[in-house]
Amino acid sequence: MSERDDFASTLHEPELPVSVDDDVMDDDDRLRPRFVREVLDAVADGDDEAARGLVAELHPADIADLIELAPADERADLITALAGIVDADVYAELNEHVREDMIDEMEPQQVADLAAQLDTDDAVAIIEDLDAEDQLEVLRAMEPDDRAAVEEALTYPEETAGRLMQRDLIAVPEHWKVGQVIDYLRSGDDLADDFWEVFVVSPNHHPVGTCKLSTILRSARSKPVSEIMARKQTLIPVDLDQEEVALKFQKYALISAAVVDGSGRLVGMITVDDIVHIIQEEAGEDVLLLSGAGDGDINEPIATTVRTRLTWLVINLGTAMLAASVVGLFQGEIAKFALLAVLMPIVSGMGGNAGTQTLAVVVRALATNQLTDSNTMRMIARELTIALSNGVALGLLIGIGTAILFDNPLLGAVIGAAMVINNLIAGLAGILVPVTLDRARIDPAVSSAVFVTMATDVMGFFSFLGLAAVTGLAG
Amino acid sequence: MSERDDFASTLHEPELPVSVDDDVMDDDDRLRPRFVREVLDAVADGDDEAARGLVAELHPADIADLIELAPADERADLITALAGIVDADVYAELNEHVREDMIDEMEPQQVADLAAQLDTDDAVAIIEDLDAEDQLEVLRAMEPDDRAAVEEALTYPEETAGRLMQRDLIAVPEHWKVGQVIDYLRSGDDLADDFWEVFVVSPNHHPVGTCKLSTILRSARSKPVSEIMARKQTLIPVDLDQEEVALKFQKYALISAAVVDGSGRLVGMITVDDIVHIIQEEAGEDVLLLSGAGDGDINEPIATTVRTRLTWLVINLGTAMLAASVVGLFQGEIAKFALLAVLMPIVSGMGGNAGTQTLAVVVRALATNQLTDSNTMRMIARELTIALSNGVALGLLIGIGTAILFDNPLLGAVIGAAMVINNLIAGLAGILVPVTLDRARIDPAVSSAVFVTMATDVMGFFSFLGLAAVTGLAG
Repeated sequence: MSERDDFASTLHEPELPVSVDDDVMDDDDRLRPRFVREVLDAVADGDDEAARGLVAELHPADIADLIELAPADERADLITALAGIVDADVYAELNEHVREDMIDEMEPQQVADLAAQLDTDDAVAIIEDLDAEDQLEVLRAMEPDDRAAVEEALTYPEETAGRLMQRDLIAVPEHWKVGQVIDYLRSGDDLADDFWEVFVVSPNHHPVGTCKLSTILRSARSKPVSEIMARKQTLIPVDLDQEEVALKFQKYALISAAVVDGSGRLVGMITVDDIVHIIQEEAGEDVLLLSGAGDGDINEPIATTVRTRLTWLVINLGTAMLAASVVGLFQGEIAKFALLAVLMPIVSGMGGNAGTQTLAVVVRALATNQLTDSNTMRMIARELTIALSNGVALGLLIGIGTAILFDNPLLGAVIGAAMVINNLIAGLAGILVPVTLDRARIDPAVSSAVFVTMATDVMGFFSFLGLAAVTGLAG
Repeated sequence: MSERDDFASTLHEPELPVSVDDDVMDDDDRLRPRFVREVLDAVADGDDEAARGLVAELHPADIADLIELAPADERADLITALAGIVDADVYAELNEHVREDMIDEMEPQQVADLAAQLDTDDAVAIIEDLDAEDQLEVLRAMEPDDRAAVEEALTYPEETAGRLMQRDLIAVPEHWKVGQVIDYLRSGDDLADDFWEVFVVSPNHHPVGTCKLSTILRSARSKPVSEIMARKQTLIPVDLDQEEVALKFQKYALISAAVVDGSGRLVGMITVDDIVHIIQEEAGEDVLLLSGAGDGDINEPIATTVRTRLTWLVINLGTAMLAASVVGLFQGEIAKFALLAVLMPIVSGMGGNAGTQTLAVVVRALATNQLTDSNTMRMIARELTIALSNGVALGLLIGIGTAILFDNPLLGAVIGAAMVINNLIAGLAGILVPVTLDRARIDPAVSSAVFVTMATDVMGFFSFLGLAAVTGLAG
């Protein structure tokens, strides 16, 4: 019995129902397959009431999970059965590919109604994926205010602060007192509800400071805002890339931040809950990009996935053929001494492994802004030291092993030396390739692996077979 | 000129100095090498005042960056020169390896003074890395209250909610009115300052609801708390793994959450700013783990890095030798027809690339809880479809190319067929290996790659050389 059982049983007062129990979700907040099946079976049986009863207590994020976990051909019926429960919040949580499929089936007016219930950033996320014609129809069906906000957001490039921000925020003039701020907040029902700080602005609407809500709550009504506000704040330019926005939130531990336009005016606010999934995506995408798996979304249409991955594989086929042509130079030696062909993949493969290690570390260090011009030389020295240590260790291991196993000391010396050389190549390529691409403003995660693998394959074969040839090993 | 110049020049009123300008940081919030050098030169010249003047306006996170970017042997002098500026907040932001080096140089009393200025979670982060003896000395030097809080946190396993939480939080009884809450917050100077919601608790200190500060600010003083609080909340068990804590924050868009002990009592609070770096680390570590680069920290002691990476390389050496022994079975064919040795790395290498693509996608889908028992079969079918499509495309490409280039249709047919087979093996291994490890509660990112590469190497060589042998290609 896990600790979750313990606290679930004692946490709630006896008369309150336990809202989500262990039959529904496992310890990792994943919906249990049995539960998913139960809901889908109810829908298939036409028992919508049973299905609705099962999901009634779920969080919108979990309902979105349920829809994603359902087979694609059962999703439409599921959503029909859960009409009213699958609300705008659920759509905002849905995977974009799954959502796109659903939205494509809807009338413009339905999409407009959905968007109206959401914050600007979530509404934009839904509308930006539509094609131009549908977009226009949906915008026409919206209320003028919402429409203006969405249209303005759409003028900013995709994946920038302008698309992420909300326009609903609390901005007060510097000369107000705490009491005035509180009265203002209590006055209007149409004010935003999800805010964590109040922005203080100059008469021309430039941010001059911020007040955490906790500071306002803990200050006397008579205190001037200008006395309790923090004057230092992180401002987000409206066209900043979302990856940089995410890094700012992380580095400066922000809960929310003011977004300013080119002239420094406050135009919106970004809150951390809109950023956490970007932090996760941007950090997690390196492994996908390095492997050439595109954005790696499991809900992506399969034709798109095939195209993305095949493109990458064909590029790799080119480098593999280049490496093969190096082997081709030594066909004579191989025909005389086939053992060379047996051992050569060990040298190239181990170089590839070592190169990938360095590459992974360097790509992450670049992505998190830890590797800058200040420490690049130090990092190169560090990686070469590691490459030399590991190369010598592996070279001795394979060299001595080979010499003994095949009773051929020269063969052992050749493969050992090739191993050292290729590890150094791996370390050097593993850092120089991504650093060079980064300086050329090319994302190193996207294109480094192909160059590093090419270097370790080509040099692995060349150093081993070349040394074998010059030492007369095959003669 | 970037947009940052624009807004920096217009944002601040003319009489205010621009606090951090473009000479100090680049567009990505990285300290410029010239600035880092300037500070370090000032320190080397003994001109502490100049160094202090340069960094005075920096955020603690940027001062931490400065220390990390300084060469290891210049850090001690830098910190001495910046005494008072390098405060507890800077230590909290420092990379743990760099911090450990600094802390090792300090007296227990100094460490205790640092810890006293920090929230419990940051104090714990500093103290938990000390060895047992130093830990005891530091704890002895602390005030009883702080000491008790840190000691309690240390009773929870590393990387759990108990280590991340702060004990300073605001909890109020259900029968209070909004006015009472506000008066309570205004009353005490020793209350926490960084909080975003107020927890409502039962008489036995079990959480029964939460109030966002914005809700409190917008409600009349006479409103009972029980009327405005949200009754549904996400509770964090105190011994929950930090990765699961991070996923909860992300999934449910939490700003802060109550931490409860085994009996359901409120024992602490975790805020999102303590979680964002964990979200980033956990998402980013897959690429490092898959490549066998350990935690990939560029500040890790070099001996540790060498050991971690070498372990992985030696394991890979084993699988490379296994693959080589498969080639060894076909030495006779290779001696007769050396072209086989030229082409065989293409088949194994392309399989490795395809397998890595699938592996990356599956590992990310598992880590983000998107792949569960509900959709595993669908995912296997999807990956096999992709593998077959790409295998056939690549097989035709290389097969026809080989047939024409070497004027040998049989050789083309053999390499084409081997390519299809190895792509299917890659797709199958790329999903079955991580899913199986995950079900066995082994982190698939740590150990999958070795099995997948082994499968694609062994089967790549075997299918190509085997088909060559049975078709009499080398005869």
